[in-house]
Amino acid sequence: MTTIAKGLEGVLFTESKLTFINGSEGILTHLGIPIQEWAENSTFEELSLALLDGKLPTAAELAAFDAHLKANRMIPEKLAEEIASFPRNVHPMQALRTAVSYLGLFDPQAEDTGEDARRAISIRMIAQFATIIAAIARAREGQPVIAPRSDLTHAGNFLYMLTGKEPTTEQARLFDIALVLHADHGMNASTFTAIATSSTLSDVYSCIVSAIGALKGPLHGGANEAVMDMLDEVGTPDQAEAYITKKLDNKEKIMGVGHRVYKYFDPRSRVLRDYAEHVASKEGKSTYYQILETIEKTVVDRIGSKGIYPNVDFYSGTVYSDLGIKKEYFTPIFALARISGWCASVIEYSRDNRLLRPDAQYTGATDQHYVQLQDRQ
Amino acid sequence: MTTIAKGLEGVLFTESKLTFINGSEGILTHLGIPIQEWAENSTFEELSLALLDGKLPTAAELAAFDAHLKANRMIPEKLAEEIASFPRNVHPMQALRTAVSYLGLFDPQAEDTGEDARRAISIRMIAQFATIIAAIARAREGQPVIAPRSDLTHAGNFLYMLTGKEPTTEQARLFDIALVLHADHGMNASTFTAIATSSTLSDVYSCIVSAIGALKGPLHGGANEAVMDMLDEVGTPDQAEAYITKKLDNKEKIMGVGHRVYKYFDPRSRVLRDYAEHVASKEGKSTYYQILETIEKTVVDRIGSKGIYPNVDFYSGTVYSDLGIKKEYFTPIFALARISGWCASVIEYSRDNRLLRPDAQYTGATDQHYVQLQDRQ
Ligand SMILES: CC(C)(COP(=O)(O)OP(=O)(O)OC[C@H]1O[C@@H](n2cnc3c(N)ncnc32)[C@H](O)[C@@H]1OP(=O)(O)O)[C@@H](O)C(=O)NCCC(=O)NCCS
Ligand SMILES: CC(C)(COP(=O)(O)OP(=O)(O)OC[C@H]1O[C@@H](n2cnc3c(N)ncnc32)[C@H](O)[C@@H]1OP(=O)(O)O)[C@@H](O)C(=O)NCCC(=O)NCCS
Repeated sequence: MTTIAKGLEGVLFTESKLTFINGSEGILTHLGIPIQEWAENSTFEELSLALLDGKLPTAAELAAFDAHLKANRMIPEKLAEEIASFPRNVHPMQALRTAVSYLGLFDPQAEDTGEDARRAISIRMIAQFATIIAAIARAREGQPVIAPRSDLTHAGNFLYMLTGKEPTTEQARLFDIALVLHADHGMNASTFTAIATSSTLSDVYSCIVSAIGALKGPLHGGANEAVMDMLDEVGTPDQAEAYITKKLDNKEKIMGVGHRVYKYFDPRSRVLRDYAEHVASKEGKSTYYQILETIEKTVVDRIGSKGIYPNVDFYSGTVYSDLGIKKEYFTPIFALARISGWCASVIEYSRDNRLLRPDAQYTGATDQHYVQLQDRQ
Repeated sequence: MTTIAKGLEGVLFTESKLTFINGSEGILTHLGIPIQEWAENSTFEELSLALLDGKLPTAAELAAFDAHLKANRMIPEKLAEEIASFPRNVHPMQALRTAVSYLGLFDPQAEDTGEDARRAISIRMIAQFATIIAAIARAREGQPVIAPRSDLTHAGNFLYMLTGKEPTTEQARLFDIALVLHADHGMNASTFTAIATSSTLSDVYSCIVSAIGALKGPLHGGANEAVMDMLDEVGTPDQAEAYITKKLDNKEKIMGVGHRVYKYFDPRSRVLRDYAEHVASKEGKSTYYQILETIEKTVVDRIGSKGIYPNVDFYSGTVYSDLGIKKEYFTPIFALARISGWCASVIEYSRDNRLLRPDAQYTGATDQHYVQLQDRQ
C-alpha cells in the first residue's frame, strides 16, 4: 500500500539553515536565535540581511545594507502610473501580484539567475515592496501617492508613505516588530511556492509573484484580513463565545487559529498579544481586543486539545488596526515582511537546486480507448 | 535518521483521475486513454473539456464548449493596450505572466473560489491565452495585433493571430496535435506550483500566474527554447556528436533530454519525431532535424543506461520552427496548451483541498543568542 502525504505534512524536501520551528513547544528561531530576541532587539532591516547572509551582520555590513535599501526605495515612474491606473475595487493582493510582475519587465537584470543577481534583485525588491504597497493603498483610497523618505527606517517610511503622516517613534518601532515577526517562517505555503517556481531555474520575479499569489489565500496570509472580518461580524464581546461555539458546532474553521506545525501557542502570537495587552493597560481594552480574548479562551477550551491555538494572524490585525491601517492592507503588509524570507529561501534553495516534481496517486480509469464522437452515449 | 525527499521525487501528495504515467515503459494516458490516441483522433478543445470534466464529452457538450471558447476569444481593450506598452525586449514569458495577472484585475469573478466560478474563469482563460500570447508576440515584433476569428479552430486561430496568415488545414492540425501533446502531464512543476498556490484557497488567476512563472524555467517549459539555442550553437550536423560529447564530459546538462518520471522515451517525443520524420521524407531533412537525430543517438548511447532519453521538448521546437514560429515563443506556446492541465488540476485538487506545507531539515546553528551590534566581531 502506498501512503499519500496529504498537504505534504511532515515531508522533508530540502535542508535549510534559516529557520527552526518546534511546534509542540511553540519555539521559533532564525539562525538559532529565538524569535523573542529578534523582536526585542533587532530590526526588519537587520533580520532581512541576516537571513540573506545566514549570519548576524557587522555594524558596517548593516549600515551598507541599510543605505542600499534606502537608495532603492523609489519605483520606476511607469510602475507608479501603472498602479494608479488599476481598477479601484480590486483586492490589493491582486494589485501587488500585478505590480511586482510588471516591475520585472523594467529590470535589465531580471533574467540573470546567478546568485549575485538574485541577491541584488532581492535587495531592490525588499526596498521597493514598501513603496509599491503604499502606492497601491493610496491609489485605492483615491489619495495622492507619497514619495519615500530616506531619513526614516523601513517601517517608519512605510507608515509615512501609507498615511502621509510621520509616525511616532513608538508607532514605527511597533510596526517594525510586526515586520520582524513576519519576515520568515520556514517552508510555509508561499515560501514553498516561491521555491517550486525557482526549482525550474526560473527568475526571481517569477518566484516572488508566485509567492504573492499563494500568500493571498485565506488559509495563509489572507487569514489576518479574515480575522478582522470575523471580529466585525461578532460585533460585541458578549457575542463572541456564542459565535465561536456555533461555528465549531457547524464544523466551520475559525480564522487565525490552527497551524500545520504549531500544536501549541505560536510564539509570534504571544509577542503580539503582549503588545496588545500593553496598549490595553494604557488606553483601556478596545472592543477588538476584548473579542479576541474571549475567542482565544473559547477556542483553547474547546479544541486546544486538538492542537488548535492562536497563530500569528490572530493578534496582528489589532496591532495594524491600532496604527490606523484598514484590514484590506493586512495581507500586503504580511508580504512586505515575508519578502525577505522568500528571497533568502529561494537563494538558499538555488545553491543545491533540484526540480520540485512530486507525484499523484492515480485513481482514474485504466485501459480506455478513444471513442469517436458519433459513437458516444 | 530522517530521509529527505529531494525534489519531492516519488512523493505522492494527492490523488488524481486525470493523467497516468508509467515512466519505465514510456506510457502516458489521459482518463485512461493513451496519448497516441488523443493525438491521432482528438483536438485541443476536446481534450481540454475532457480534462475539466473527467470524461469524454458528448457531441453536444463539445459543441457548446467550442462555442463558449470562441465567444471568449476577445481580450479587454485595456489589456491589449497594456501588452502593446510592454518594453520590447522582455522575455515573452515575463510578458505573459504580467498580462494574465493584469487580466485578473478586470474579472469581476476573480475572487470567487467556488468550483463554478473556477470553471468559468478557466474556460475564459483557455480561450484568451491564445489571443494574449499572439498579441505579445505581435507587439514584440513591432507588428499590429490581429483580432481573433471565430471561424477557425483554437489552433488555427492562434496561428492566424500570430502570423497574420490563415494556416493550411495541415498546419492547423499539426499545431493542434502539438497542443494536445502538451495539454497535461500530471504533477509537473508548473501544475504543482499552481496547486501549491491554490492550496491556500487563493484565486485562479494567482494559481495560473504562479504556474507561468514555474513553466518559464529552463528545467521545465523553458527547455524547448533552450533546445533551439543548442541547435543554433551546434550549427551543422557533423558538429553534433563532438558538441554533446564535450558537454557530457564536462558534466553539463543537455536540454530536451532527461525527465523525472520517464526513464525511457517520452511517448510525446515519439509522436513529434514521427511527424518531423514525415516532413523530412517529403521535403528532405532539415539541418535542425539532422542535428537532433545525431544528438538523440549520442545521448542514448552515452547516458541512455542512466535513463536519459529525449523528452517532449526535444522535437517540439522543430515542429514550431517548421511552422515559421520564432524560438522566443516556444515556451508561451507550451503555456497555451498547459493552461488546460493547470486549470483542470487546480479544480480537481480544490475538491479535496489541503494546504501544501512541507518541511525542511534544519541544519543551522542551535542555542544562539542575539548579540548587540557593538559586541559583534
Ligand atoms: C493553518 C491551517 C490551514 C493548518 O491546517 P492543517 O494542518 O491542514 O489542518 P487541517 O485543516 O487538516 O485540520 C486538522 C484538524 O484541526 C481542525 N482545525 C484546523 N484548523 C482549524 C481552525 N482554524 N478552526 C477550527 N478547526 C480547525 C480541523 O477541522 C481538523 O479537525 P478534524 O481532524 O476533526 O477534521 C488551518 O489550521 C487553518 O485553516 N486555520 C485557519 C486559517 C489561518 O489562520 N491561517 C493562518 C495560518 S498562519
Ligand atoms: C528534467 C530534469 C530536470 C529531471 O531531472 P531530475 O529528475 O531532477 O534528475 P537530476 O537532475 O537529479 O539528474 C539525475 C542524473 O541524470 C543526469 N541528467 C539528468 N538530466 C540530464 C540531462 N538533460 N543531460 C545530462 N545529464 C542529465 C544528471 O546529471 C544526474 O546524473 P548523476 O546521477 O550522474 O549526477 C533533468 O533531466 C533536466 O534538467 N533535463 C534538461 C531540461 C529539460 O529538458 N527539461 C524539460 C523536461 S520535460
